[in-house]
Amino acid sequence: MEGRPLREECGVFGVFGVEKAAANVLVGLSALQHRGQEGCGVAVLEQTGRIAVRKGLGLVSQVFPRDAYREHAGCFAIGHVRYGTSGGGELDNVQPFVFHRNPYDFAVVHNGNIVNTEELKIELERMGTLFRSSSDSEILGHLVHVLSTGKEGLTAHSLKRALNLIDGAFSFLVLTPDRLYACRDKYGFRPLSIARLGDGFAVGSETCALHAIGAHGIRDILPGEVVEIGPHGIASSFFATEHRNALCAMEYIYFARPDSDIEGVNVHAYRVESGKILFRESPVEADMVFGVPDSGLSGAIGYSRASGLPLETGLIKNFYVGRTFIQPNQSLRMTGVRMKLTPVPSVVKGKRVVVLDDSIVRGTTSRQIVRMLRDAGAAEIHLRITSAPLRHPCYYGVDISTEAELISARMDVDGVCRYIGADSLAFLSEAGMLEAGRRTDLCMACFNGRYPTALYSHGED
Amino acid sequence: MEGRPLREECGVFGVFGVEKAAANVLVGLSALQHRGQEGCGVAVLEQTGRIAVRKGLGLVSQVFPRDAYREHAGCFAIGHVRYGTSGGGELDNVQPFVFHRNPYDFAVVHNGNIVNTEELKIELERMGTLFRSSSDSEILGHLVHVLSTGKEGLTAHSLKRALNLIDGAFSFLVLTPDRLYACRDKYGFRPLSIARLGDGFAVGSETCALHAIGAHGIRDILPGEVVEIGPHGIASSFFATEHRNALCAMEYIYFARPDSDIEGVNVHAYRVESGKILFRESPVEADMVFGVPDSGLSGAIGYSRASGLPLETGLIKNFYVGRTFIQPNQSLRMTGVRMKLTPVPSVVKGKRVVVLDDSIVRGTTSRQIVRMLRDAGAAEIHLRITSAPLRHPCYYGVDISTEAELISARMDVDGVCRYIGADSLAFLSEAGMLEAGRRTDLCMACFNGRYPTALYSHGED
Amino acid sequence: MEGRPLREECGVFGVFGVEKAAANVLVGLSALQHRGQEGCGVAVLEQTGRIAVRKGLGLVSQVFPRDAYREHAGCFAIGHVRYGTSGGGELDNVQPFVFHRNPYDFAVVHNGNIVNTEELKIELERMGTLFRSSSDSEILGHLVHVLSTGKEGLTAHSLKRALNLIDGAFSFLVLTPDRLYACRDKYGFRPLSIARLGDGFAVGSETCALHAIGAHGIRDILPGEVVEIGPHGIASSFFATEHRNALCAMEYIYFARPDSDIEGVNVHAYRVESGKILFRESPVEADMVFGVPDSGLSGAIGYSRASGLPLETGLIKNFYVGRTFIQPNQSLRMTGVRMKLTPVPSVVKGKRVVVLDDSIVRGTTSRQIVRMLRDAGAAEIHLRITSAPLRHPCYYGVDISTEAELISARMDVDGVCRYIGADSLAFLSEAGMLEAGRRTDLCMACFNGRYPTALYSHGED
Amino acid sequence: MEGRPLREECGVFGVFGVEKAAANVLVGLSALQHRGQEGCGVAVLEQTGRIAVRKGLGLVSQVFPRDAYREHAGCFAIGHVRYGTSGGGELDNVQPFVFHRNPYDFAVVHNGNIVNTEELKIELERMGTLFRSSSDSEILGHLVHVLSTGKEGLTAHSLKRALNLIDGAFSFLVLTPDRLYACRDKYGFRPLSIARLGDGFAVGSETCALHAIGAHGIRDILPGEVVEIGPHGIASSFFATEHRNALCAMEYIYFARPDSDIEGVNVHAYRVESGKILFRESPVEADMVFGVPDSGLSGAIGYSRASGLPLETGLIKNFYVGRTFIQPNQSLRMTGVRMKLTPVPSVVKGKRVVVLDDSIVRGTTSRQIVRMLRDAGAAEIHLRITSAPLRHPCYYGVDISTEAELISARMDVDGVCRYIGADSLAFLSEAGMLEAGRRTDLCMACFNGRYPTALYSHGED
Repeated sequence: MEGRPLREECGVFGVFGVEKAAANVLVGLSALQHRGQEGCGVAVLEQTGRIAVRKGLGLVSQVFPRDAYREHAGCFAIGHVRYGTSGGGELDNVQPFVFHRNPYDFAVVHNGNIVNTEELKIELERMGTLFRSSSDSEILGHLVHVLSTGKEGLTAHSLKRALNLIDGAFSFLVLTPDRLYACRDKYGFRPLSIARLGDGFAVGSETCALHAIGAHGIRDILPGEVVEIGPHGIASSFFATEHRNALCAMEYIYFARPDSDIEGVNVHAYRVESGKILFRESPVEADMVFGVPDSGLSGAIGYSRASGLPLETGLIKNFYVGRTFIQPNQSLRMTGVRMKLTPVPSVVKGKRVVVLDDSIVRGTTSRQIVRMLRDAGAAEIHLRITSAPLRHPCYYGVDISTEAELISARMDVDGVCRYIGADSLAFLSEAGMLEAGRRTDLCMACFNGRYPTALYSHGED
Repeated sequence: MEGRPLREECGVFGVFGVEKAAANVLVGLSALQHRGQEGCGVAVLEQTGRIAVRKGLGLVSQVFPRDAYREHAGCFAIGHVRYGTSGGGELDNVQPFVFHRNPYDFAVVHNGNIVNTEELKIELERMGTLFRSSSDSEILGHLVHVLSTGKEGLTAHSLKRALNLIDGAFSFLVLTPDRLYACRDKYGFRPLSIARLGDGFAVGSETCALHAIGAHGIRDILPGEVVEIGPHGIASSFFATEHRNALCAMEYIYFARPDSDIEGVNVHAYRVESGKILFRESPVEADMVFGVPDSGLSGAIGYSRASGLPLETGLIKNFYVGRTFIQPNQSLRMTGVRMKLTPVPSVVKGKRVVVLDDSIVRGTTSRQIVRMLRDAGAAEIHLRITSAPLRHPCYYGVDISTEAELISARMDVDGVCRYIGADSLAFLSEAGMLEAGRRTDLCMACFNGRYPTALYSHGED
Repeated sequence: MEGRPLREECGVFGVFGVEKAAANVLVGLSALQHRGQEGCGVAVLEQTGRIAVRKGLGLVSQVFPRDAYREHAGCFAIGHVRYGTSGGGELDNVQPFVFHRNPYDFAVVHNGNIVNTEELKIELERMGTLFRSSSDSEILGHLVHVLSTGKEGLTAHSLKRALNLIDGAFSFLVLTPDRLYACRDKYGFRPLSIARLGDGFAVGSETCALHAIGAHGIRDILPGEVVEIGPHGIASSFFATEHRNALCAMEYIYFARPDSDIEGVNVHAYRVESGKILFRESPVEADMVFGVPDSGLSGAIGYSRASGLPLETGLIKNFYVGRTFIQPNQSLRMTGVRMKLTPVPSVVKGKRVVVLDDSIVRGTTSRQIVRMLRDAGAAEIHLRITSAPLRHPCYYGVDISTEAELISARMDVDGVCRYIGADSLAFLSEAGMLEAGRRTDLCMACFNGRYPTALYSHGED
Repeated sequence: MEGRPLREECGVFGVFGVEKAAANVLVGLSALQHRGQEGCGVAVLEQTGRIAVRKGLGLVSQVFPRDAYREHAGCFAIGHVRYGTSGGGELDNVQPFVFHRNPYDFAVVHNGNIVNTEELKIELERMGTLFRSSSDSEILGHLVHVLSTGKEGLTAHSLKRALNLIDGAFSFLVLTPDRLYACRDKYGFRPLSIARLGDGFAVGSETCALHAIGAHGIRDILPGEVVEIGPHGIASSFFATEHRNALCAMEYIYFARPDSDIEGVNVHAYRVESGKILFRESPVEADMVFGVPDSGLSGAIGYSRASGLPLETGLIKNFYVGRTFIQPNQSLRMTGVRMKLTPVPSVVKGKRVVVLDDSIVRGTTSRQIVRMLRDAGAAEIHLRITSAPLRHPCYYGVDISTEAELISARMDVDGVCRYIGADSLAFLSEAGMLEAGRRTDLCMACFNGRYPTALYSHGED
């Protein structure tokens, strides 16, 4: 899936009780950069008790100089990478959000999307809250505030009361002067893991970031769990009595890095398995199989393994093209896709090829890929998608595709196949998606419309 | 006064009902750049009814590209320049502050300092407010919010109730989807002027910015006045029944641009007059007179005129040295002052010189100037300061000097003269400061400790 | 091969007779960015007859804004990407080099290294030349100049005379006001291809760049060939009567992009084949095979195909880490490698793995990879290198490794295997390297010390 | 004179035998920044014997980080600031120029313009030279090279032979591994001074830069003089037997900084004197006098002193507007001038004002100033120019105005006065220009067409 995804993604990372915490957070965020390239920030607890934040638009390596925080000895920090902060005007929406509450500050980072945002905002405004960003991620801070009584301030108790009022997808990190709270929604929509680092702890959206800083003893935060990390160690409790394992299926399929493990299943292994099942479900006679880089590569391994078809490299990604230059040759019907992705004519020429991709959103990118392969001489092009057709909007991330944009919401598989110009097209079944992870449950709402939560105002849009 | 001033300053600017409002605000902010070089921002009302903000650290010309807002047709915008936002972490404190309140946004910019900040924050927190910056400028938004009832939202009525609760120095601009409010505290600490621009209006901290965009019909906003600019014109009212004319004397002496008029008195003319009076009060026999650029230049004109001593240019300022390079020759006792300010040996050599400067804060810069002139061959150096000795902290701006740092709080005039190494030193009297502006009242608290407001928690520090 | 390579690389690209030539060159250079990330530049013929150059340090997307040359209608341009321009001081060495010669300018870009540089420089200096850079690439311009007589200026004749005096590796593009010359040394050390683009032509270091702009009718420039592209079409001739096919083997093994074809052989296909042969030569019993991204991936496909071992993804590359942050945790023995490359523990744990890489230079990166895989739980690690041991410096590129640094020049295979800590290690044979490309000749001097050219002063170093 | 000047200017600076030479050069260049803001560079001798150069487009403070060269211990460096390098393509023209000549490098910076450029270039090309920039400043390096014989390399002898062949304006600094040569043309067109600094020496275009680094014992380099600074001290000699004192009059009038001394005359004192003479020549009855900042300010002091008219500040310059934003209000006939320069209405309203400016080039800026003052209420506006009418192009700098653009070449004084809309206009006489400096000779070719040199090809344009 090149091009705009179905929804936006974020990554969170935090370190507690480890020297040079902020420098560690930068390393962790760099490992999570695939989850968001538009903006990033770090909040670090100063010796004064204040929390200082630095943030900006762009990659971690663009916003922070190479030696940022090198001399900063602070032991407590959290950070965030964010997808889709378009335009300079949105700096107010870049996280971490720091809240100044007498007598101390606290800071919040959030991955996910809250579905009862409107209801909570109206209620909070009635209670005196005034929002400073248009982001739903600001809600938790205000909720905790109005639920905290007296001078005790933000406690695990008030935090859990607040979390119980929030519906939707969230992995929250909350940093106070003496605590780091790691919270995961009761559906477990988004991944969140914790590990030991030196004498302290680290938490992050994916295990790859925990590996990057050399953390060990990694485990998932569970759905509905709040882990409170303090000077005397960690304490786990649950804010919700009922919880589910409704991890977003797209985490395995597209978002997460292949070297991450989510709930006991390695992402790469999931994708290989899904490719195998896809062959079983939708075999085809062909000369070779290859994937659309990067997220289609693991699936291609699985399809090749199951089918015995040779695995090839039929498409190459140019990693240096972060930004596409204006295309000078319009007559050639070329697009930005061509600069990022090019076929290997000598591989595909005259061959019947099976192409693995993770999903089809609008169909435009798939159509361009098929055309490029056709131009490069491929005799037959069989597209195999390691997920089911996307037919419904996602309410658990910043939804950037409407139902009308989703090609599979408007056409059946044959229609999509004709639109993109492939010789055949097949999607993985929902059962296959579960089987690939040896799971009985995943959130597959964007495929089948069965939303784990109530939909509130969104549902009527 | 080179070096760090007594307190920090800001500038505000707004445009209502004029095409390309944001581009006009950029021009206005550029004219106010002397009031703050550390950070700036612009908030503009979008057609969607949302208010979009762009901000950053640095000069207006650094934060905004040359063609910023060129194509933006929006007719309503406000902006801010800010002194003293040190470090990247303070981006949350850069204004405008945008508040998202169902069903619409509003934005606030503020010049000044609120003295009952702590009291208001505690009360507001109790009422549900959670602050998102460490700036006192955020208070107004929250106050208005908790004072607004029902759906009517922010009205002149709720705004005036809020202003009545705030004590201290403020010139506020508040932008809503259909109004621009310009408010000045009841003491009139900071300047704020309004003018016509095309079919609409412009407001700004100084008249020089109104001139820069070609506005006309300029008048001061009065102490305690709220001007409400709306689609049907402007309406003036007062939120306070009692008001004073306690304009900060330092506005005339140091902060404002010479081509600005404040409350009927041109700043340059004030400074010329103060130089004249200073000669009357503290004459000296000498060969020439000159000023420390820039703020001492007008005073030197007055001193020269009254004394008949020839006006010279004995010190030159290098305007390109925004940032000083590390000085390679420490043995030469040189400092950053030398790169920004250099004596003209051929002018001062063998001469008895009178040097006019606006104020003495710590004494270090004056000491360096005297030494440089001495090295350049000046026979006698008589320093004349167009204000009284600074002996008290200022609570009406972000105070960056403690009393302990103020050399005149620790020494008498003779002691200061010895410290800086001048042959004679004289300050303007407080009466002279009033007389220069033909005024009966000014805030001179930093000179005489008579603070126009209660001091709240600050007083006990 | 992560880490510093054996020698530095460059890429050249040019367009003749096509509208928006410079914009096309930017697209071409972006596709060649893997050949050099340190500096880049574009020279374009202006309507005045002058050649204007823009260049800088960094990626094409950093040096040139997105809309650079969008409006530039000029039809003739060349460009360059360069590896290894360290430090700001080397801007004089960034190409294109423009030469101003009455009555017109010409510009040169160069990929390769001239081995008789010292001899030519001494002779040229004697003839009046004064060099303006420390780059050997400046030589051609001066040689052509001193060989051109009268007013005719730079002609194919004088160019060929100059090329005959230059020994070493070069792919030159030379742009004059009415010609574009594309020249390849008589050994064919470096790739260079030409194609049709609209009514004009394009030339570039690799075919992937020609594909990126939609060129067609691609063919290699031959060793010793000069292609003269002019207003009336192209003309081919040879400046050397003898020529060889001594293409640098490392182009296939490491430098070139997999989707490029060089002398009729696709780079990816070459690598797959080399992996197959490597299994035949050095089989091993194991559970899986995977490659070190990116250049080891194709080889792993071949090894997997020949061995029947399942292809896996045991190492992941983080493409966002262009620049590594200072590592905060020294006690963990982590390095920059870890941020760029991470193992997938769930894949390798308890498994006997075969790891394919393209080459071993110093051994430090391989050692870190082995350690990371070991830490991730791999039971056995068998390293397979798709090239022979590097034992000799390369004089045909900017050589950045001395013989003393090459681990295989100091140790035999067993020694290297012990140093890097692998369970087994095997290199491809030289015969295998030729067989993989179905070639009888390649430059393999860095493997076997048989340099195709005389070595001049270098030989005695 | 706001707006584009008659010709472009540069500044050179060098340090020999002083620790942290490059850091000193940065300080010196910062003090010379008024002579060129478009580009700058520094060349420093490395311990390897090579000369490393860093350069870029923009101010010294933009091109070099604050701590540039802080750690660089090298004792020999030269630098350059340059006016008028428009566009990124001109990086090849930014100085210093480094020349690589076996066995060592040398570097050159140049202020001035060579008038026999075409003749020298043709001859040099015939002798084997190929130019790498379009700048005439490259000529010296090549001339020295072709005149140097054998291995002795660049010597004072060969340098003087080269200088004798160059006609026009030049202040050259030439840095070799063991010498710094400072050379001034035989007419003395441009200023150049030398001083002691620690155990070594410093040379620079103006004395203000020598003061800035704490140098002492300052003297002018004489017309036709070559000062050779070496490890054993300095040696002076003359390359030309005849020399003149044809210093460019515009150096006193406009280019140089007021605190500099040129040939024994302080620039500020010159300007004061010229204002006095101008009153004597062209008195007028008025209420006040003021200058156009910055270069008109000193002249206004003189005019005030001679006339007894009070000196005022009627125009203010906004120093923060390096770059003007797009003006949003075209209907208001405003221009960039308005953002940089604003009148003080309260000063000028109803008054008869005398305005001092240094020169009139095209007349457009003067016209805007008159209009602004008129709009601000001035009753009468009398413009007094402290130089004669500019009627001829300058061939001794990069000439950026053609004769057709010079308003005084097309109109007499009355015509100019009507065009700019002043009530009266007067220029200083040529005799007055000499008298102001108590000089018998200055280059006043742009005023009277009497060019000190032959004009070569330019004369026929």
